[in-house]
Amino acid sequence: MCRWLAYSGSSVLLQELLYVPAHSLIDQSLHSRLGATTTNGDGFGVGWYGEGGMPALFHSTEPAWNDRNLRELAAHVRSQTVFAHIRASTGTAIQQTNCHPFRHGRWLWMHNGAIHEFARVKRELTLAVDEALYPELQGSTDSELFFYLALTAGLEDDPPAAVARAVGLIEQVGAAHGVAHPIQMTVATTDGASVWGFRYSSEGQSRSLFYSTSVDTLKHQYPDNPLLHGVGDEARLIVSEPLGDLKGAWNEVPESSYGVVRAGRDELAPFSPQPWAVRAQAVAPAS
Amino acid sequence: MCRWLAYSGSSVLLQELLYVPAHSLIDQSLHSRLGATTTNGDGFGVGWYGEGGMPALFHSTEPAWNDRNLRELAAHVRSQTVFAHIRASTGTAIQQTNCHPFRHGRWLWMHNGAIHEFARVKRELTLAVDEALYPELQGSTDSELFFYLALTAGLEDDPPAAVARAVGLIEQVGAAHGVAHPIQMTVATTDGASVWGFRYSSEGQSRSLFYSTSVDTLKHQYPDNPLLHGVGDEARLIVSEPLGDLKGAWNEVPESSYGVVRAGRDELAPFSPQPWAVRAQAVAPAS
Amino acid sequence: MCRWLAYSGSSVLLQELLYVPAHSLIDQSLHSRLGATTTNGDGFGVGWYGEGGMPALFHSTEPAWNDRNLRELAAHVRSQTVFAHIRASTGTAIQQTNCHPFRHGRWLWMHNGAIHEFARVKRELTLAVDEALYPELQGSTDSELFFYLALTAGLEDDPPAAVARAVGLIEQVGAAHGVAHPIQMTVATTDGASVWGFRYSSEGQSRSLFYSTSVDTLKHQYPDNPLLHGVGDEARLIVSEPLGDLKGAWNEVPESSYGVVRAGRDELAPFSPQPWAVRAQAVAPAS
Amino acid sequence: MCRWLAYSGSSVLLQELLYVPAHSLIDQSLHSRLGATTTNGDGFGVGWYGEGGMPALFHSTEPAWNDRNLRELAAHVRSQTVFAHIRASTGTAIQQTNCHPFRHGRWLWMHNGAIHEFARVKRELTLAVDEALYPELQGSTDSELFFYLALTAGLEDDPPAAVARAVGLIEQVGAAHGVAHPIQMTVATTDGASVWGFRYSSEGQSRSLFYSTSVDTLKHQYPDNPLLHGVGDEARLIVSEPLGDLKGAWNEVPESSYGVVRAGRDELAPFSPQPWAVRAQAVAPAS
Repeated sequence: MCRWLAYSGSSVLLQELLYVPAHSLIDQSLHSRLGATTTNGDGFGVGWYGEGGMPALFHSTEPAWNDRNLRELAAHVRSQTVFAHIRASTGTAIQQTNCHPFRHGRWLWMHNGAIHEFARVKRELTLAVDEALYPELQGSTDSELFFYLALTAGLEDDPPAAVARAVGLIEQVGAAHGVAHPIQMTVATTDGASVWGFRYSSEGQSRSLFYSTSVDTLKHQYPDNPLLHGVGDEARLIVSEPLGDLKGAWNEVPESSYGVVRAGRDELAPFSPQPWAVRAQAVAPAS
Repeated sequence: MCRWLAYSGSSVLLQELLYVPAHSLIDQSLHSRLGATTTNGDGFGVGWYGEGGMPALFHSTEPAWNDRNLRELAAHVRSQTVFAHIRASTGTAIQQTNCHPFRHGRWLWMHNGAIHEFARVKRELTLAVDEALYPELQGSTDSELFFYLALTAGLEDDPPAAVARAVGLIEQVGAAHGVAHPIQMTVATTDGASVWGFRYSSEGQSRSLFYSTSVDTLKHQYPDNPLLHGVGDEARLIVSEPLGDLKGAWNEVPESSYGVVRAGRDELAPFSPQPWAVRAQAVAPAS
Repeated sequence: MCRWLAYSGSSVLLQELLYVPAHSLIDQSLHSRLGATTTNGDGFGVGWYGEGGMPALFHSTEPAWNDRNLRELAAHVRSQTVFAHIRASTGTAIQQTNCHPFRHGRWLWMHNGAIHEFARVKRELTLAVDEALYPELQGSTDSELFFYLALTAGLEDDPPAAVARAVGLIEQVGAAHGVAHPIQMTVATTDGASVWGFRYSSEGQSRSLFYSTSVDTLKHQYPDNPLLHGVGDEARLIVSEPLGDLKGAWNEVPESSYGVVRAGRDELAPFSPQPWAVRAQAVAPAS
Repeated sequence: MCRWLAYSGSSVLLQELLYVPAHSLIDQSLHSRLGATTTNGDGFGVGWYGEGGMPALFHSTEPAWNDRNLRELAAHVRSQTVFAHIRASTGTAIQQTNCHPFRHGRWLWMHNGAIHEFARVKRELTLAVDEALYPELQGSTDSELFFYLALTAGLEDDPPAAVARAVGLIEQVGAAHGVAHPIQMTVATTDGASVWGFRYSSEGQSRSLFYSTSVDTLKHQYPDNPLLHGVGDEARLIVSEPLGDLKGAWNEVPESSYGVVRAGRDELAPFSPQPWAVRAQAVAPAS
């Protein structure tokens, strides 16, 4: 349905992430190997942290593979935290407001998968969004709504707990409407400092998700690989599918798990839906 | 904010309506005289009834003045009922799902004006939309939501009553949120047979709206005007601003009024908001 | 590189050609089986003859598969002669002026393939275009230039001879610049009455091209197939790849051949490049 | 026809140039005061020098005023040399390859005005472009062709002489084809270090052009103006029309003149067309 990439590490030119790897995200836009569709041509988006530590967004409804503006940007923009997403629509309109990543304040969010039978559950889920956040909804996708449910449930305070509650609500509302498998997801979210990646689906057969081995390990293993030279040892990638065939470079995120990438300590932990709860304090809308 | 045109009459090439007149709608996209903005370049839309009596839509996010596809279509498509709209966004995104006219089944709808302070009232108004219709909402505009409120209130059975109830709700919800003047509107809607045009605003200073004099009268008055030759005597236009300076050709729709154009009998009647009511029978979603 | 479809016959809704068949052109935009690329997502175009017998064009830079305007048009436009093309760029920009079909007066033209090493031969080939036609060149593709070479060589008088001369020039200029295989092509062109289809390549391994069996024959063979009911016996399709798996429905156009589809008599004949010649009388530019 | 802005000085966020000033370029896209048209909505472009000292381009066919990607970029990209252009087409297609600034290697170029009766002289002018440069032509505008004529005449060695020769050719070819006033122009070009601005027209009534007073002078004159705080004393702007009404801030470039902005020394000198000459050494195409 979609493919995405999240990077955290030393400052890197976007093109090193998006164009240089053998099976880069741009290559995946035409030739995805592990995705639900081989073509992901219904728009794309890139988010990065720059000026003042705030995230910038570039969204386009064109396919990524031939987009000249993306190629220009990628050759000139450097960042330490990058989210990139290529879209294969499951039915909602091809428009910039439906392109990932989505943004709220310092936070970015992107999603691969679907809230199944979305038309049946959309209204009830939308009602659960915090009233102060409601006016920020701009598009029509399940993915953006999912983000605002997570924000309502406290994403900014405790991402794993908030995502678990949002998924809990989606499971519960889906079940109440007779949806067999309410959710299919890999999700990435970040505040610019840490990156969280989630893999889960109601039926226990989730879309693929991988994280990169420590660069330090790889440098020892492949001392002659030029791709690894410019990247600091802290760098990590979380991706829908590996960007190349380098042995030992990629680890699959297990079913029903989430990982955190941050300075000093990475984590991998089990993930399961939790009962819906709104955090006590009202969420402030993004200024 | 926007400009629009509604035509009903003998079959006509779209370009006769959109390009040929001296101050055509396409000219208004760059040089509106009576609009809130002189430039209406945030996309456009055309709806027409054709094959099987069902309406077709063409929506674009480009300015109308240089759109090559619109020029091609206009030179090749004929219809007896045509809606055309050029947009000047009041803040919502420039995307096809925000382009007028909007469609539900056989019905088309377009709007010039705004639900003021929309972010404050959007949630409550959205909740009033019939649950069966809710999944059809595709964009993020006040205008589309207004259409679905009117549908919920029975537009398909009694358009003037339904629009009056929808406006009643908008006035009431606006007042409850402290909005000084909740609505500014000219609206056109049609089922392909009749066309209704409404002019109203909370402050009693509504956007301009005009309807054309009977072609029969004009033909007597201007026997040498070639523009009138090809048009049947039943033809009528309702427009945001006159398409030219032909004396006697245009009548202003009075404040707080609506008109109906249909075969055999036109009407002009007062319009005022009515208490919100949902029609007894649930609305069937468009198939 | 691209895929295309040319239809000539009884009046048909575009969607019968573009969306209904099992392996329709829209399906080929994502899942081409015989093309050089499986994805043809770099824009599309449709040309049809309508009002006054003149061709209309609809060009878009979006992928065809999710284009809402194309779906609307296809459901409302009928024509007796339809050209449709989905593009996979070989490097030139994704823009409407590079979308097929191209038009000159009553003539349409579309091409699958390439003039190889185009940058090396473009200038010399462009110089060969009739000076009166030169200002009509709007895009940057090899395909549009090829069309104007054919027009210069007399396309409007004798299409097979003109295309043969244009190909002769391309072969000759390519050879002079050391290009191994100067041209790869299937081409369709029409004046709205007859349709010509060409298959040729310098290396003798041309892109696929098929024409439909007579509908009359098919109706006898498949009396229960509803797809054949609404189509007159004169109807013919020329396509890059078959629109379905109906046995006996599709014939491959042989290497180095061209076919003509017209009322009363179809033809299939050998095709070979001829020496370049400009027709004696200067070509009039399209008004 | 168009409006543009060229900045050279201390590193600045693009939004300081494009959005913050009272009569910013984005404001001019809807409300130009001195331009040939008040609306400049046929696409835009920004070029800036960044990574490795090479220029980046961002081109869009959308109007600048509501473009979300431009607003994002402008809030996150800093540069010491910025070119920005908003377009009002004089007839050629609205497509990215027709958006200014144009680029060759390290050079950027933008133009306001027109080569008059372009269709009549285009072929002859195109033939004068260096054969090695010819394949780089991507769009269909007079402005891009003018750039490649200047490159052919030695822009990279001596910009004022090269532009004078290119204008000489345009005057000569126009005259030979009976064009009354062959050229109308303001032009900006840069190699990233110096910026050249030209003002000229065949009829001696050129489009407006202004350059900013020295920031040092302004700071003394307006010690309380916050806009001047962050800008170094070397900063200079060359603009189609002033960005605000600050008295003393803007000087008109005289008719038939050009100016150079560079570190250490600015210059203003007369400009007149010179006989066409191609520089002795062939121009290398951009790699």
